[in-house]
Parts: sequence; C-alpha cells; structure tokens
Amino acid sequence: MSGQMKLVVVGSVALDSVKTPFGQVSEALGGSATYFSTAASYHAQTGVVAVVGEDFPEDHLEFLRSRPVDTTGLNRVSGKTFRWQGEYGAHLDEARTLETHLNVFEHFHPRIPDSYRSARIVFLANIHPDLQLEVLEQTQAPEFVAMDTMNLWIDSQRDTVIQVMKKVHLVTINEGEARQLIQEHNLVKVAREILKMGPRVLIIKQGGYGALLFTKETIFSAPAYPLETVMDPTGAGDSFAGGFMGHLARTGDLSPANFRKAAIVGSVMASFCVEAFSLDRFRTLNGDEIS
Amino acid sequence: MSGQMKLVVVGSVALDSVKTPFGQVSEALGGSATYFSTAASYHAQTGVVAVVGEDFPEDHLEFLRSRPVDTTGLNRVSGKTFRWQGEYGAHLDEARTLETHLNVFEHFHPRIPDSYRSARIVFLANIHPDLQLEVLEQTQAPEFVAMDTMNLWIDSQRDTVIQVMKKVHLVTINEGEARQLIQEHNLVKVAREILKMGPRVLIIKQGGYGALLFTKETIFSAPAYPLETVMDPTGAGDSFAGGFMGHLARTGDLSPANFRKAAIVGSVMASFCVEAFSLDRFRTLNGDEIS
Repeated sequence: MSGQMKLVVVGSVALDSVKTPFGQVSEALGGSATYFSTAASYHAQTGVVAVVGEDFPEDHLEFLRSRPVDTTGLNRVSGKTFRWQGEYGAHLDEARTLETHLNVFEHFHPRIPDSYRSARIVFLANIHPDLQLEVLEQTQAPEFVAMDTMNLWIDSQRDTVIQVMKKVHLVTINEGEARQLIQEHNLVKVAREILKMGPRVLIIKQGGYGALLFTKETIFSAPAYPLETVMDPTGAGDSFAGGFMGHLARTGDLSPANFRKAAIVGSVMASFCVEAFSLDRFRTLNGDEIS
Repeated sequence: MSGQMKLVVVGSVALDSVKTPFGQVSEALGGSATYFSTAASYHAQTGVVAVVGEDFPEDHLEFLRSRPVDTTGLNRVSGKTFRWQGEYGAHLDEARTLETHLNVFEHFHPRIPDSYRSARIVFLANIHPDLQLEVLEQTQAPEFVAMDTMNLWIDSQRDTVIQVMKKVHLVTINEGEARQLIQEHNLVKVAREILKMGPRVLIIKQGGYGALLFTKETIFSAPAYPLETVMDPTGAGDSFAGGFMGHLARTGDLSPANFRKAAIVGSVMASFCVEAFSLDRFRTLNGDEIS
C-alpha cells in the first residue's frame, strides 16, 4: 500500500506455541503488534514499532510486508525473539500461559521512525506500561491514542497503568482485567471509574460474547459473530483493536457514531482471526469476505 | 385489560427465598409463570395456568390481577405453595439452589380453562416435561408454541425434553443447558442440532450478555442492556420470554424480522426484572419506561 502512514502500533512481535482442543502450533507468528497491524492493514496504512531477534524467520517479515504492513519500525537485534507458550481448555475462554521468554524484549525501548510521524492515530498494544509512556513522550500530539494492557501489568505496575490511562483517548481492556483494576464486578460502575481517569472511550472486551463500548453518556454493544469454527482465540483482542483503529484511521472520523461502526469492523476482524491458528486466516482473507 | 386472551403460560407460581450480595428476600412472589405473565402483560392479554396452595398470600394474586394477568387458570388447592430457596455469588451468574419444596406441584396436572382456548400462542415455562406434554395434548393446534426447560430435566428426563422440543415452534434455553443437552461447546453446532429436532426458532440465553436467536438460516444477537443496578437475576429468563412472546402476541406477526424485534423487547423486560428483588420492579414499571 502506498500513501501516507495513518496508524502506528507499538507492541510485541512474537513466536507463539499454542495448544487448543483443536490442534497446536509451535513457534508460529504471533504478538500483539502483529495481530493488530495485520487486521488494521485491511483498512489503513499501518506501521509497526517492535523488536525481533536474529532468529525471526524472514518468511514472517515477508508476510507482514505482503499485507502490506510498514516494518520500518520493526528492529532486528542480536538475541532471540520474544516467545510465548499457552494452552486453552475446552471453553476456549482464557489461555493458560505455560512459558514466557521476553528475550530481546527485555532491553527494548521503542523508537518511532521519522516516516511514522505523520500518523495521527497510535495504538499502544499490550506491553510494559513504562514502554507505553516512552512512546507517548516521542509522539507529537497525535489526534487519537489508544492502549491495551493485561492482568500482569495491573498486578505488578498498577500505578503506571493508570498513568498511561490518564494520557490516552481510548482504553481497551478485557472484562476480567477491568474488574480486577477497579475491584468491582458491575461493568457499568467499572466503566465509570475508568472513564473518570481520563479516556473518553472505553472498550471492554468480552471474548466470545463481543465487546461493550462506553463513553460518559452512552453504552454500545458490539456482539461477536457466533462462529461454527473457533480454532484458536489468540490475537482476537488485538485483531478487534486493529479493525477498530484501522476503521478510524481510514475514515478520519472520530465521532461517537463512527466509534460504533469501528466496533463492528473490529468484531468482524476478530471473528476471522479465531477461525485458524496464528495469523493463518489472514493469509487468505480478502476485502470481499470482510464486506 | 379486557379483550381476547392472546397468550397462555403454563408454569410455576412460587414463593422464593433468595439471597444475593445485595440483599435477600424471604417467601417473595416468584415462579416461572409469574415472571413470564407479568412481563407479557405489558404487551398482550395473558392467562396463567398454575397451582398454588392454601397459604398463597391474597396480595400476590391481587398484584397479578392488577397488572392485569388473567388468573382463571391459577388453581388454589389444599396443601402448601411451591417454594424455592436459592443463593447467588458475587458474579450473579448462576443460582445455587439450597432447597426446593414442590408441595402442591407434586400432584399438579395443568388444565387449560375454556376461556383460554382462543389464545393462539402458548408458552410452556420450565416445568416437568411430562406436564408440558399434557398441555400440548389439551391445546387445539395453537399457531405458536414455545418451551423452556432446565438442567434438572435435561439430566433426569432427557428423552421427554426432546419429545417436547419436537412438538414446539420455539425453544428457549440457557447457554450452559443447551451445551449440556447436545454435549458440545460450540453454540453454532449446538443450535444446529437443536433446530434439527424440530423447532424453527431457538433462543439461547446468555445471562448478563443477552441472548442469541437462531433459525436454520440466520443468527441474531440481542445484547443485554448493561445495568448499573443488578439486585437479583431470578426470573430474568422468564421475563425475557414474557416480553418476547408478549410482543409476538400483540403484533400477531410471526415473521423472522418480528422475532428480532421481540428479542429486543425481551431484553428490555429482563433488564427491568433484575433491577430489584422478586417482581418488585414491575410493581412500579410503566409503559413509558419500557418505550
């Protein structure tokens, strides 16, 4: 895709080993920035900021570039690529992490390339909140910044997570993690507390049920499309975010009505993601299927 | 309400003792037919077939009649009223049944009064499937019959439950119970198997997430309205069914498009139900609030 960079994502590019009741893959392409940028690339020119090791297969880079995703900000450094190993039970609801090897991510400091500066929309995918803050220091007042996070950071870096939330326009977070952050079960109350921190939009992801989109005045439900084939839920949340932010970047419209459309686009991208392991469904997905 | 009876429900009228994290009630008005008929009564003339004991408070009958629900088919017999005692945990998802006393329900055989014969729509609420079959034997080819059931009957009376499913147009069932019946986790596959049994519409209830409406060709999601106040989920499913069937009865339109509207009406009625204990929210609810 030629044209101006519209959207930048900072997150992980990883090699995932995943087992579900329907099969398994070993060292397959994964990572939050990978799922996000691939899903977003159907909608807008997207640049990735991340790091991989010397062992990262050239094939995976070629796949990203073929989408096309701009990989100027994807650095290859000495050392091994980030690896995650997880397993899903029969309900396919939450992954049990078996192993995490940060590897090159341990000393990663995101650097946004000059060619990404024109992007007005930035997604801080699920990485250490200190790194999310480093990204925000380098950006020049982007129009719209969104973030994701996870239970690990809420447990260990709660204050920093909240500091990031204060600086972004949109927070996306899992149902369980949102409840964990606010220590409250009722999602309407949870949403009010998170919106009080600063963001003007909150997306609570509910796995196979879909997502709820909250603003101070409104609640919108984007149900998941019920699928007959769900092979591997890994990356569904990042694919949702990629579809959502990709739609915003493509249209340039940050109105509440367009947020609702973006949530539907996000649901569609997430539903394709889970139909196969790793990013395999995206290898053949075309625009007609999305429409 | 005067006019022709449009809708009949056969089910339980009970005294419920319920504890949730937000309070408790003792021997409050409850029962599947009670919740259903109260919710339906906002939309169409509804008659109840059920049984209560000598101890059933006159106040509760007066409440039903004030809605107005037709109680010609609600028999008072010697003995004690059906009682259920249950408790909900912090997640308010599934009730733990502490005690069930069938009492007068033990020897109950539903009899549909002559004045209900004009009703073209019948709801078989959650009672023993043998009783549901007894009702079907007494009806004169109603246009639309729906049924509900529960894990207890799926465990102990599976064949009879399936026999009822073969004779109705619509099945409503909880997500977990649907999976239990078909022994399959994927809801699209579950739905296909249930629809194969005979019904042309299937509603899978997903608690606080809403409901999915399946036909052989379509899937529709009716998300639950996220509520800030959820006091007691008891009766939500029956209130959903009451709103759904009440809307069908009022409009007389059994088209797929109207099923989708009915599901939205059902969601609204369920959301009012859970805002207070027992049927207390319906004591003040008016048509403007529903709109």
